[in-house]
Amino acid sequence: MLPRVTTTSQTTTTDTDRKHVFHSWSAQGQISPVEVVGAQGSHFELADGSRYLDFSSQLVNVNIGYQHPKLVAAIQEQAGRLLTVSPAFANDVRSEAARLIAELAPGDLDSVFFTNGGAEATENAMRMARLHTGRQKVLTTYRSYHGATAGAIAATGEPRRWASEPSVPGIVHFWGPYLYRSAFHATTEEEECARALQHLRDTIMVEGGSTIAAIMLETVVGTNGVLVPPAGYLAGVREICDEHGIVFIADEVMAGFGRCGEWFAVDRWGVTPDLICFAKGVNSGYVPLGGVVISADVAATFADRAYPGGLTYSGHPLACASAVASIGIFKEEGILEHVRGVEETVLRPGLEAIADRHPSVGEVRGVGFMYAVELVRDRGSREPLVPFNASGAAAKPMVEFAAACKENGLWPFVHFNRTHVVPPCTTTAAEMREGLEMLDAALDVADRHTTG
Amino acid sequence: MLPRVTTTSQTTTTDTDRKHVFHSWSAQGQISPVEVVGAQGSHFELADGSRYLDFSSQLVNVNIGYQHPKLVAAIQEQAGRLLTVSPAFANDVRSEAARLIAELAPGDLDSVFFTNGGAEATENAMRMARLHTGRQKVLTTYRSYHGATAGAIAATGEPRRWASEPSVPGIVHFWGPYLYRSAFHATTEEEECARALQHLRDTIMVEGGSTIAAIMLETVVGTNGVLVPPAGYLAGVREICDEHGIVFIADEVMAGFGRCGEWFAVDRWGVTPDLICFAKGVNSGYVPLGGVVISADVAATFADRAYPGGLTYSGHPLACASAVASIGIFKEEGILEHVRGVEETVLRPGLEAIADRHPSVGEVRGVGFMYAVELVRDRGSREPLVPFNASGAAAKPMVEFAAACKENGLWPFVHFNRTHVVPPCTTTAAEMREGLEMLDAALDVADRHTTG
Repeated sequence: MLPRVTTTSQTTTTDTDRKHVFHSWSAQGQISPVEVVGAQGSHFELADGSRYLDFSSQLVNVNIGYQHPKLVAAIQEQAGRLLTVSPAFANDVRSEAARLIAELAPGDLDSVFFTNGGAEATENAMRMARLHTGRQKVLTTYRSYHGATAGAIAATGEPRRWASEPSVPGIVHFWGPYLYRSAFHATTEEEECARALQHLRDTIMVEGGSTIAAIMLETVVGTNGVLVPPAGYLAGVREICDEHGIVFIADEVMAGFGRCGEWFAVDRWGVTPDLICFAKGVNSGYVPLGGVVISADVAATFADRAYPGGLTYSGHPLACASAVASIGIFKEEGILEHVRGVEETVLRPGLEAIADRHPSVGEVRGVGFMYAVELVRDRGSREPLVPFNASGAAAKPMVEFAAACKENGLWPFVHFNRTHVVPPCTTTAAEMREGLEMLDAALDVADRHTTG
Repeated sequence: MLPRVTTTSQTTTTDTDRKHVFHSWSAQGQISPVEVVGAQGSHFELADGSRYLDFSSQLVNVNIGYQHPKLVAAIQEQAGRLLTVSPAFANDVRSEAARLIAELAPGDLDSVFFTNGGAEATENAMRMARLHTGRQKVLTTYRSYHGATAGAIAATGEPRRWASEPSVPGIVHFWGPYLYRSAFHATTEEEECARALQHLRDTIMVEGGSTIAAIMLETVVGTNGVLVPPAGYLAGVREICDEHGIVFIADEVMAGFGRCGEWFAVDRWGVTPDLICFAKGVNSGYVPLGGVVISADVAATFADRAYPGGLTYSGHPLACASAVASIGIFKEEGILEHVRGVEETVLRPGLEAIADRHPSVGEVRGVGFMYAVELVRDRGSREPLVPFNASGAAAKPMVEFAAACKENGLWPFVHFNRTHVVPPCTTTAAEMREGLEMLDAALDVADRHTTG
């Protein structure tokens, strides 16, 4: 007889949750987690019978949609074959996952170091860069998130870092491009790009190019705003890195594997970083998996010198098998093409129409299935609908907006004064239209908080 | 049609591995990983047809043995139900895994924060302790390993840390008990215990008890030597922590879930820490999973204050389902009792007999299915068979010993001048006898390097 889960009612699950589950990023006494009992495709279902179209892909990871039958079958098959093998061995699915990812990655990024998730990926990318260059400093941007272990949270450029300071020394934060709230008083994309690059050059000048191991960027900034780099910015960063012998790390934990309509978001701009961090979309989080794709040059540093990092589940066969299957399904089903098509015909025009209709919408921006709708009190002043890092009463307009989405059957991704449209990459055109209608309706609630 | 792994021959897998897989803790140009093609129970098989009795449990994680049919079935079943749900939700298997683990944990350790593995567990335990106490410093021991992300590697007290310095500030290393190579010139267990506690008290005196957030210990030190604490040591540490309001973190990533013949190794000494870190044995690494079990007192700190840590796959349903099933199987099959029985009747007497026969064996020590055989050049001087952290030619005697084990059909765990006997907790008495015979034969090779 199989050991079975004994909790079957909603009451038991949520009661047990409140007694025994310690939740991420939460005041444990102030949360009432609702129970997810099932999910399929673009929808998930709660224990109370309510069903939601998911515009958040959980934490922007379920790129292939929920419970994709072929991916489920591949996991079940590998479970029956071989679940776990330590990192020192070779294994067929581990080799194949690495080969496929290297094949998809740009340039000579040919080796893959596997981790369990995104934080370990950015941690190891920074370690590789430090040892490759013999330098300590890493530059990252404000308004970035790179994970929550000590090195990853130090690199993070937003409030989730604050409680974990002091952390690893040698991280320097600078400002990236974000035209709508330009740190550089720019008024056009071209100007924002030029000034952001000048700011980076200036920062390197005063920090010392010869002291900097790496510049780590989210190719498209994720949770902190879907900040899409202007044309030329990433190429400019690449050039600056080359001038100073700095390693260029692209953190694509959120932006990679379909999210931006590309295997890797950098492909959109034809730029080749030295290291790419991935997780989430690589296998839609069906099994915990992340990693770093490594250039030949960085890898060569560790040809005869031991790489001083590792983890028990590096290259975990079950996780690797799910990545192999997921990449195969993406190809077979043309999911990248699907994302680009639906973005072009439904998502972007739909969001533009929504922006026209709602005074609370300051800007819509994005790429692929990764869009942000930035909400404001006043379109002229661009005052955010809620203050930066608002909580409690100050956050109320966004809480009301999110509640309205849920009432309409849409599960939104909400952060600060924005809602992100980050549905599974398999979301159909019809589902996307339906979701945009629900979003449209919910924005009436946000409109009531405008003052313009 | 299922996307299938296309590499089927050993040549392809290992060739692909050398082209594309970047391995943990290795000089990439100096390794030739062998391919594992299958595993069952206490054995695994390589692509060349060779089959090994595993005395290492991979990285001391396959506590339930390989491909346990009930655990495989539970994973396959959960894969078909629901693979991934973000940490903000409640979920039946997440609740049940937390409830079961809390039930097994001592004292009022009633909440569980789930991670993907051990490093994230120690990272989050240290973060909890720092915020709970409002202090920054963490004391850990030399000869310890706590993981390889920036915070975890800073806490680590052995060479794997060296290349990652400087890292997180505020870690202070002290010496733990290890009678065979006593840092305190002790000659009995009682003396070692008293002196080690005095050393800890002295260290706290000069560091300042009011500046110390946590003392983090491996309950039984793992990779760095299977250092079993003398009777009274852990209770002494508990007392010292209480005197100064210091959080006691037990790192049981390796020692927990059956390895020491107990659910938690602290049970062996009846001591209740404030936080317990787990991973590996909780589900035998079938799916990446780790976590922290949290006392009511520490949890209360985060009742109305947000806990500033998290990860996308915290409480991953597939991982949690595997933990639920694994704990059920451990109970049904009486695996803890099995470990204690086979330790008593086969493992300990077997190793003692081996120690008598081989001049290269300086000491055998351990608990449960976690033993070390410490090899020396000379029993009188206790000079290690190879120097601390030896590599290349200096490590040759241990390399030869390991090769002899493999020739005999035994896969050994080797670290510095020790081999550890850490087989799956399901290893039968007959398999254990067989393994000890193979170990016995291989030790003749080590004997040749003795000078005594």
